[in-house]
Amino acid sequence: MDKEKIRVLVEEIVKATLKQPKQIPIAASNRHIHLSPEHVDRLFGKGHQLNKLKDLSQPNQFAAKETVTLIGPKGKIQNVRVLGPARGSTQVEVSLFDGFTLGVKPPIRNSGDIKGSGAITIQGPRGQVTINEGLICAARHIHMHTSDGESFGVSDGDRVQVRVEGERGVIFSNVLIRVSPKYKLEMHIDIDEANAANIKNGQLGEIVAIESRVQVSGG
Amino acid sequence: MDKEKIRVLVEEIVKATLKQPKQIPIAASNRHIHLSPEHVDRLFGKGHQLNKLKDLSQPNQFAAKETVTLIGPKGKIQNVRVLGPARGSTQVEVSLFDGFTLGVKPPIRNSGDIKGSGAITIQGPRGQVTINEGLICAARHIHMHTSDGESFGVSDGDRVQVRVEGERGVIFSNVLIRVSPKYKLEMHIDIDEANAANIKNGQLGEIVAIESRVQVSGG
Repeated sequence: MDKEKIRVLVEEIVKATLKQPKQIPIAASNRHIHLSPEHVDRLFGKGHQLNKLKDLSQPNQFAAKETVTLIGPKGKIQNVRVLGPARGSTQVEVSLFDGFTLGVKPPIRNSGDIKGSGAITIQGPRGQVTINEGLICAARHIHMHTSDGESFGVSDGDRVQVRVEGERGVIFSNVLIRVSPKYKLEMHIDIDEANAANIKNGQLGEIVAIESRVQVSGG
Repeated sequence: MDKEKIRVLVEEIVKATLKQPKQIPIAASNRHIHLSPEHVDRLFGKGHQLNKLKDLSQPNQFAAKETVTLIGPKGKIQNVRVLGPARGSTQVEVSLFDGFTLGVKPPIRNSGDIKGSGAITIQGPRGQVTINEGLICAARHIHMHTSDGESFGVSDGDRVQVRVEGERGVIFSNVLIRVSPKYKLEMHIDIDEANAANIKNGQLGEIVAIESRVQVSGG
């Protein structure tokens, strides 16, 4: 190795060390369901209002006391938590492992992108609904407030790599950045991903690379 | 960026591009159990010989026709495949997800390292056994033949990073290298890890970094 090469390497290492680490708390989402107002009626009875069990980390979102049973061609999963408030379209989020239990193959999708996604039957205490689309395996993503996006130097739609330390350490690739003044900083992964890296809720991950950018940054 | 820095960067990129990729087929291990000869007797009857269902990729190892039920404090898992041939100590390998189902917390261990590991009850058609240790979640590892170790430049006990491409791409850290003239090249992960990266059996991973070495290599 020549002197110049060593100088460049040292410079890069010093720069990387001095940089603020871009750390993000991680939360593992267990299987859950968002219901349209119409489906709340059909599963829980006409005019039923979801009852809050506890607030979620994202503002105004809550886990409801209500649960449903998912029924697939090969099996069923009971006690699937309903999240509130009721919203436009019903969306069921399960892990790929849950997909094997149910006998369905949920596509990996961003929340809200349900066109052509999976079908599933949902059983509530007052009725049953079969949806032709709306079953997904949620793609890993990071919610962040506009101010976090600025301090991290990333924008809504960017893709980053996130490193998690530990005996089952991994670097997650292709992690979608979602920026909004309504969001709180948190990375969302599913149970398979949490187990694969043996992640406990609240554990920190670090953005170690930006893989793709939606818009050209000022830097 | 000055010219010299660009020259160094280009040199590194060209070198990296010309290097042989270190690709390895990946296999996901579902939950399974290795039984001691004594426990074969107790679960399946005195003098019982395990019946081969099919050969496994590692020489002389086979999936047996026999299955058992695992019973934990919170639940049971049926149809857990027995692997043969019978060997020294009984070892039960499950995923962390299976651990939640059973209500136990299997430590992440290398195969064979069962001292102080988890307890579990095993039910067979002719009897039941409770082991005080032997329940583990297998740590991710790569089996390779001695010749693979030489061509990849790694030794038994080294730890490497393995990259898997795809919409759920990950880089697995802390992957143990196991080299033996009896092994065939294959990376073993569990079902949680396979789902987290949406890996299909036989898909290729690539060694992208050596994290730690047991011995100083000749290079």
